[in-house]
Amino acid sequence: MAAPDTVVNVAEKLESFEELFAPRIVAEFNGYQLKVVRAKGDLDWHHHDETDELFLVVAGTLRIELADRAPVLLGEGELFVVPRGLEHRPVATEECHVLLVEPAGTPNTGDVATAATEEWV
Amino acid sequence: MAAPDTVVNVAEKLESFEELFAPRIVAEFNGYQLKVVRAKGDLDWHHHDETDELFLVVAGTLRIELADRAPVLLGEGELFVVPRGLEHRPVATEECHVLLVEPAGTPNTGDVATAATEEWV
Repeated sequence: MAAPDTVVNVAEKLESFEELFAPRIVAEFNGYQLKVVRAKGDLDWHHHDETDELFLVVAGTLRIELADRAPVLLGEGELFVVPRGLEHRPVATEECHVLLVEPAGTPNTGDVATAATEEWV
Repeated sequence: MAAPDTVVNVAEKLESFEELFAPRIVAEFNGYQLKVVRAKGDLDWHHHDETDELFLVVAGTLRIELADRAPVLLGEGELFVVPRGLEHRPVATEECHVLLVEPAGTPNTGDVATAATEEWV
């Protein structure tokens, strides 16, 4: 686990693992966690009942498909908040790197049974 | 005010105003706000009793001086969480651009009487 009072270099954290769609925790504040994720391909459609979810793309391009509305396309340095309850599906044609902010314990698939195990890096 | 369900380009938001140490709100989730700030010079020493404060540098270099411990130096793509209650002072020798995450309504100086007015961009 990263000490909570250290400087976190986001790119270095992303280089420290290879798994896709397996968020790693890099910082915590007020019970929220900052996670980095390497994405390529697509995750299943899902939603989070209890929380909005913030996506900030740090490298590459991420498309987020959304129920009943047009998908959003996020390039480097762009962010989007998926409102709680809204079905969504992240899709990355090429590998992209994303920073997520959400409450500690939020499962990445919206379902603890299918969620990736999340560890600190 | 930015619509909550739009894509936010962080660099464009930072180009849309010029004031220093005057955070602008760019997104909101779960009652938290993402703010961008252009920093040059130094803010007064202050603390936030009720909240940790997340700093992510998106351009330039920010030094955060901390009570009773060594300062941290944040380059582009680096982040740090200032724990609640800890006196701190952000210092930027050259202009730098920072993303902040904190609960809606957090005054930037730790004191509503001296805080910058915060607006959406």
